[in-house]
Amino acid sequence: MKNMTEKEKMKKIREVLENNKALGHAITLLHWDLETEAPKDAVERISKTLGYLTGENYSMIINDEFKNLVYSVNSEELDEVDKKIIKELKKEYFEKLEKIPKEDYMKYSELKVVSTKKWEEAKNKDDFNIFKPYLSEVIEYNKKFIKYRGYEGNPYDTLLDDYEPEITVKELDEFFNNIKNELSPFIKKIVEKKKSDKEIEDKKKLSEMTFDITKQKEMSLYALNLIKFDFNKGILKESEHPFTTNVNNKDVRITTHYYEHDLLSSVYSTVHEGGHALYEQHIDDKITDTILGTGVSMGIHESQSRIYENMFGRNKEFLKFIFPKIDEMFGLSKQGIDFESFYKLTNEVQTSFIRTDADELTYPIHILIRYELEKDIFSNLDEKTDVDKLAEKWADKYEEYLGIRPESCKEGILQDVHWSDGLFGYFPSYALGSAYAAQIYDAINQKINIDKELEKGDFSKINEILKEGIHKYGKMKTPKELIKNITGTSFDSKHYINYLKEKFSKIYDIK
Amino acid sequence: MKNMTEKEKMKKIREVLENNKALGHAITLLHWDLETEAPKDAVERISKTLGYLTGENYSMIINDEFKNLVYSVNSEELDEVDKKIIKELKKEYFEKLEKIPKEDYMKYSELKVVSTKKWEEAKNKDDFNIFKPYLSEVIEYNKKFIKYRGYEGNPYDTLLDDYEPEITVKELDEFFNNIKNELSPFIKKIVEKKKSDKEIEDKKKLSEMTFDITKQKEMSLYALNLIKFDFNKGILKESEHPFTTNVNNKDVRITTHYYEHDLLSSVYSTVHEGGHALYEQHIDDKITDTILGTGVSMGIHESQSRIYENMFGRNKEFLKFIFPKIDEMFGLSKQGIDFESFYKLTNEVQTSFIRTDADELTYPIHILIRYELEKDIFSNLDEKTDVDKLAEKWADKYEEYLGIRPESCKEGILQDVHWSDGLFGYFPSYALGSAYAAQIYDAINQKINIDKELEKGDFSKINEILKEGIHKYGKMKTPKELIKNITGTSFDSKHYINYLKEKFSKIYDIK
Repeated sequence: MKNMTEKEKMKKIREVLENNKALGHAITLLHWDLETEAPKDAVERISKTLGYLTGENYSMIINDEFKNLVYSVNSEELDEVDKKIIKELKKEYFEKLEKIPKEDYMKYSELKVVSTKKWEEAKNKDDFNIFKPYLSEVIEYNKKFIKYRGYEGNPYDTLLDDYEPEITVKELDEFFNNIKNELSPFIKKIVEKKKSDKEIEDKKKLSEMTFDITKQKEMSLYALNLIKFDFNKGILKESEHPFTTNVNNKDVRITTHYYEHDLLSSVYSTVHEGGHALYEQHIDDKITDTILGTGVSMGIHESQSRIYENMFGRNKEFLKFIFPKIDEMFGLSKQGIDFESFYKLTNEVQTSFIRTDADELTYPIHILIRYELEKDIFSNLDEKTDVDKLAEKWADKYEEYLGIRPESCKEGILQDVHWSDGLFGYFPSYALGSAYAAQIYDAINQKINIDKELEKGDFSKINEILKEGIHKYGKMKTPKELIKNITGTSFDSKHYINYLKEKFSKIYDIK
Repeated sequence: MKNMTEKEKMKKIREVLENNKALGHAITLLHWDLETEAPKDAVERISKTLGYLTGENYSMIINDEFKNLVYSVNSEELDEVDKKIIKELKKEYFEKLEKIPKEDYMKYSELKVVSTKKWEEAKNKDDFNIFKPYLSEVIEYNKKFIKYRGYEGNPYDTLLDDYEPEITVKELDEFFNNIKNELSPFIKKIVEKKKSDKEIEDKKKLSEMTFDITKQKEMSLYALNLIKFDFNKGILKESEHPFTTNVNNKDVRITTHYYEHDLLSSVYSTVHEGGHALYEQHIDDKITDTILGTGVSMGIHESQSRIYENMFGRNKEFLKFIFPKIDEMFGLSKQGIDFESFYKLTNEVQTSFIRTDADELTYPIHILIRYELEKDIFSNLDEKTDVDKLAEKWADKYEEYLGIRPESCKEGILQDVHWSDGLFGYFPSYALGSAYAAQIYDAINQKINIDKELEKGDFSKINEILKEGIHKYGKMKTPKELIKNITGTSFDSKHYINYLKEKFSKIYDIK
């Protein structure tokens, strides 16, 4: 190693990473297979294979020889991409993982498997007690890991950084305070407004209609073509829960789920995942097969899925463009649902218990609640968290912010899989994504008139701005750098609050 | 190693093989993905990943440490399965591959890629000259490999053994002589018989019908359910060319291809692949994840696909059972195609140039021709094969045995991919499979009345006999042992000749 030039070292590092990429590709495909088509009885073999490949993938990177090689590189002599690769390797693999003793890591990995199963059982039986001891253990492990990994400021920052690099409790407090103070009362105004007979009638009609699955598929493909999803570089399939997965920028796969009585569900899932997919398809060829060749953070990723789903997909001008097609395919106006009704139904605000069913306006409140609970859990590492009280706190917050109190844990603390799988610090990125999206939306509107593009159903200019401003960079820029790059300023939640208030004031005629 | 017990050695060997299985699983899935759904532009990344995984899979086994371990095992002390694993490892990996110098093997692998591309180009342009030099090189490499690997008797035996262990030119000469002497004149009689107006009319009607693809899929699923394909352990999908692939007995995947104007094509492809799939699904749990856990040979595999496709699937009683369903779905009798017409159309004999389009009766003649040519090529290793003359010999044989002479190479020597990919010795197993199938059919008929089962559409007894007699063994028995096991005697082609003559004499009213 001593006699190697930096170029030779980089060549060797890139070789290992290329093999790592190949194994990662196989792992991605096995997961994709499992979720979309593998036969039921194949699951055992698939987990064995995944176990082996994941282990190989880990030990290929996490070993002293490779670590020493990485740390021996003098980054000053590298080009921009290689420099960033070295930085990313150190951060993602050595600084994060290596600080956690292998034994703890193994036990925690096993715990997460059991914990997720127990969560599932608890949810099915609507019995929090089944899940409690596992939740408690997962929480305490995470506290332990924060201590291993270290922190400045709030300990919760360490977890937040895993999903949204560089974001801190300090910034999120400000963000979520705005949401709490501005949106919570605004939502109450909307919800308290009496619905007209026509609104009630329209909703009933839509829910009673049947939407042919083959036609829904056609509609999903039509929508993907509109937003310029590249079918040479990706596919659409079905799965229980919609998701996006990607090998590189030439292999980006998304799923949706079709329900016979719910047209909006499949179409908006498709467009949501389509937004994730465009981000991945637009990543620069130069970095696509490196560890920098994927979306930089959960928050930025979610900003792209939500800008397509909500800001473009539920935009009035866009819906005007697409309504005739929908109407032709599914005969809405024959049932008395005209464009104005359809637009309202597409943007209906309703307080509800389940996060994943929430509309665009109430969604961030669900996240606010989780954020406050998580922050509470991890702000003090030395005291054991009282999981008994968590479900109650959960319900209290729903009552306080949305005016509804979940009667069961299934509708409350047991609804999300995240905590059972140790994903603390993940939720905030969902709300952050929407807020980024609103700020990005305003920035695009400085360059072009979005409504004018959407009334033609033309995404070419919009896509180009997003590709050049965000997508192509992959992990070459941090989330904060990307926001600055495309909007010219730092993140500011006022865009989001204003966007929501303006949009829904109009729809619900609120002064 | 010296201090290890045989049990410890076996444990270590099984560990390596388990990892090998995991990589093999990933490789299988990547190929499956490539053929069934991967986006167009993903191909480059997929080949890179396959290259890496295949290399790893190879070097995991082919290395001195593992080889020494395998050869250090005293097989006498092992149970039957482990004994067979050691034998298979030695035969498949060390005795076969190791004798070929790595450099030759690498060059040959590269050659095959180019050669296949050149074959494709030659076929598209119908120009044998493009392919000739590559074909010549592939042939000479195979001769060289035979020399490296050694042979007793005919050199061609060494290649034959790769696809049908233990079969020799001596046995195949007898087999194909029977086909030539008995079937070739019989086919001529049938072909020379004038068709009735009704027969001509029926054929035209069927070819002019349109068969809804969604309904064809339903029909394929119905057929698979009938033959008791287990959908918990497998799936049906679509691809350009139908095929079967398997990870273990709980993950067996098949494809078919739907054509709007050809109902029989998709259904019989499905049933053919379904036969392959049943074989794999029925393999014993004890061996399924070992190197013994798959079909033993091409010939035995083909016997199972063809027994379901032809002997059961085109059987008159079975067609009587299934015709009402087909008729209900596709309205054949409304078009004037009654059961008798349908049965005749399903078993139509027609001389043709293209092997893959051939009917049950003329099919073995296509194989006979390839066998004679290959035998000719490899019987003399020291003389360079004159590939210029091959296309002419090909045409001469079609004229002699089927009475038709291909006018173009596309319809002649360029039709099959096999030779471009170095698959010499492969073709005979196709015909052998049908002949095995006929003998197995007669053996089943000794135990139960197949017609009686098929007229009820009931495959449970048939499947059980095949599972117990053949399927469950995987590679635990050789092809010859399996034939003996299920039929009580050695292979004899008279069953096949008799079966074909009897069936088609009746259909075509030939005395």
